Amino acid sequence: MNDAAREIEALIALMAKLPGLGPRSARRAVLHLLKKRSRVMVPLATAMAEVATRARDCVTCGNIGTAEICDICASDKRATGEICVVEDVADLWAMERAQVFGGRYHVLGGTLSALDAIGPDELRIPQLKARVRDEGVREVILALGATVDGQTTAHYIADELGGLCTLTSLAQGVPVGGELDYLDEGTISAALRARKGL
Amino acid sequence: MNDAAREIEALIALMAKLPGLGPRSARRAVLHLLKKRSRVMVPLATAMAEVATRARDCVTCGNIGTAEICDICASDKRATGEICVVEDVADLWAMERAQVFGGRYHVLGGTLSALDAIGPDELRIPQLKARVRDEGVREVILALGATVDGQTTAHYIADELGGLCTLTSLAQGVPVGGELDYLDEGTISAALRARKGL
Repeated sequence: MNDAAREIEALIALMAKLPGLGPRSARRAVLHLLKKRSRVMVPLATAMAEVATRARDCVTCGNIGTAEICDICASDKRATGEICVVEDVADLWAMERAQVFGGRYHVLGGTLSALDAIGPDELRIPQLKARVRDEGVREVILALGATVDGQTTAHYIADELGGLCTLTSLAQGVPVGGELDYLDEGTISAALRARKGL
Repeated sequence: MNDAAREIEALIALMAKLPGLGPRSARRAVLHLLKKRSRVMVPLATAMAEVATRARDCVTCGNIGTAEICDICASDKRATGEICVVEDVADLWAMERAQVFGGRYHVLGGTLSALDAIGPDELRIPQLKARVRDEGVREVILALGATVDGQTTAHYIADELGGLCTLTSLAQGVPVGGELDYLDEGTISAALRARKGL
């Protein structure tokens, strides 16, 4: 294709690799940027370059921030006795949007997976064990996905931390706004088993 | 929201303004970039900054390129006697993808619109008239949208260029792969009126 200058085609190809964008929508996004070069494109390129240079993984919890210790680990407003274990930074951000957890996090960076040859050492599980010992943690909340790999990982961590602190996991049940008609059998039976008195 | 460092939130907000991306997909795209900082984010930021600095509108046709005269206008392989008039750079790129036109282009930058107060002088129509006179143009192909504004603009240009050169417009009919059942009445009646002998 010769429908735009080489540099513009290269930019479209890079944008097309982002999740949620394909070749057509990347072309549309780049055209939008080209039409608003000074108002949108320059600020976006500058912000992206700055984040690319400054972003780094928090050495304590694995969250992505712009300092060696992330804002959450550095904050003195967060409780120190509770660690919420999540698979991924996206999950940490989702927990923070819910604004319901006041403790600290530990990002595993994935789940145990025999197929993908991901073992405990790839997952920052040793670091979690060290934190539980060193930080005087009373409770570890396993906020892992309700998938086979997520639950395998939860069981492994429970074995590793057994006796060191209280272990809990997120409740399973009917999601807020959910209709029974659209729920799978596994969710309904989990919700029935964990039923509460009114 | 305090779920990521300030610079990262600012980048997400800028990405969310792109067409096809909203707040959620922008967050997902930025997380993807953050995980592949050196392999994806740095090249993308560099490419975007370079295009933002170098991109400019071709002084002749209005296409966006990286030089004062775009690749198409500068090429000696393109026929000089034919100008294809399009509304937008996106339309020019779409024509080029079809690889069927060997002449030059003229990008209007929109359509005439009484509602939006867009008149001929906002649309590079005077420049088109000058090109037709100066470049010895034999044919002007009006490749404008089959909308009310597009057709109004086509009629206005036809009046302006009347007698200076041959004027044609794209054929209307059944799109390739189209089924009659799904076509609107306007398209079917246009296709019937323009029927061809086999």
